Amino acid sequence: MERLPAAITKLINFFERLPGIGPKTAARLAFYLIQTPTSFVEDFSGALVNIKREVSLCRTCFNIDDVSPCRICSDHARNRELLCVVEKPLDVLAIENTGNYQGLYHVLGGVINPLSHIGPDQLKISELLNRLSEADTIIKEVILATNPTMEGEATALYLKREISKVAPKVKVSRIGHGLPLGADVDYADPGTLTEALRGRQDF
Amino acid sequence: MERLPAAITKLINFFERLPGIGPKTAARLAFYLIQTPTSFVEDFSGALVNIKREVSLCRTCFNIDDVSPCRICSDHARNRELLCVVEKPLDVLAIENTGNYQGLYHVLGGVINPLSHIGPDQLKISELLNRLSEADTIIKEVILATNPTMEGEATALYLKREISKVAPKVKVSRIGHGLPLGADVDYADPGTLTEALRGRQDF
Repeated sequence: MERLPAAITKLINFFERLPGIGPKTAARLAFYLIQTPTSFVEDFSGALVNIKREVSLCRTCFNIDDVSPCRICSDHARNRELLCVVEKPLDVLAIENTGNYQGLYHVLGGVINPLSHIGPDQLKISELLNRLSEADTIIKEVILATNPTMEGEATALYLKREISKVAPKVKVSRIGHGLPLGADVDYADPGTLTEALRGRQDF
Repeated sequence: MERLPAAITKLINFFERLPGIGPKTAARLAFYLIQTPTSFVEDFSGALVNIKREVSLCRTCFNIDDVSPCRICSDHARNRELLCVVEKPLDVLAIENTGNYQGLYHVLGGVINPLSHIGPDQLKISELLNRLSEADTIIKEVILATNPTMEGEATALYLKREISKVAPKVKVSRIGHGLPLGADVDYADPGTLTEALRGRQDF
């Protein structure tokens, strides 16, 4: 690709750094954008910058939103006795899209993964334990909805143990039937996710 | 996705408008970008705008470059008797990557496609015919390297007829063996493309 103008090579390199985009797709996207109207590219560019300006983490649940606390945390119509722990914001979105969960969330920001040097301190686990051990908490059940992968299961086991230390009266359940092992919460269809929420089991 | 902040929805919509990116991938990319450093997103955003500022079409061959005439057209070490006609700039890149073509190019900017209301006037066909009928032209052969699809073949047939009118002495060949029907020039591997260039046939 030595003959490409620097501006194109640079844009291709940015696309290549996005998850799931290889060199061929990156080049296709860059070349596609060259022939779109300037206004489209400028608006796209503006939307990119805006996402960092307008979106932030909720200080309670660490989900992303443009207000903090987020709209889910500040919605008093929701069931505040139920807390669903997920790995990432996209998982919140997937569960919300089922329309069958009315509780609150807590986003860990990942899973414990020693190979990637991610321990409990890199995740929002102490914040979760604080939420559960506050004097005025009314949370009665925590649903662990980390992915059914090795790291997700290990994180769930770790959380169950830590939660039992700080909040022994809180029921801890694991998201249930329907999710095949090795799958990813945010790719599951709403029906499967609904089944998984309903079929949760003691952990 | 009603609960998503407007900034995220907007960015997802932009990604969805890119070729080959569906709603799930678009959401993944947007959520991935939220957790990247602000500097990455800003640089990405800048690279997008730059592509429209710094890249333009070569006034001779209509390939994209940051100079006009482009670096291929102004490279006097190349074989100026050979002209390869392609659909789009990515096809030039694919053929250049074989390292086995030393002639010049002409980028049509698409193919004749009545269903999409694209006729010869929407393509750089009159510009191609002008290049071939200029008094000082030394082009001896035109290789038609449009995709081996229905529209690409129809465009090649149309070009062969028009070229024979304005430049009857110019040999017209069609890119040859190696490309399966229905495929796309810019996805072919360099070896297949090299074979296709070598195995070109009279048309």
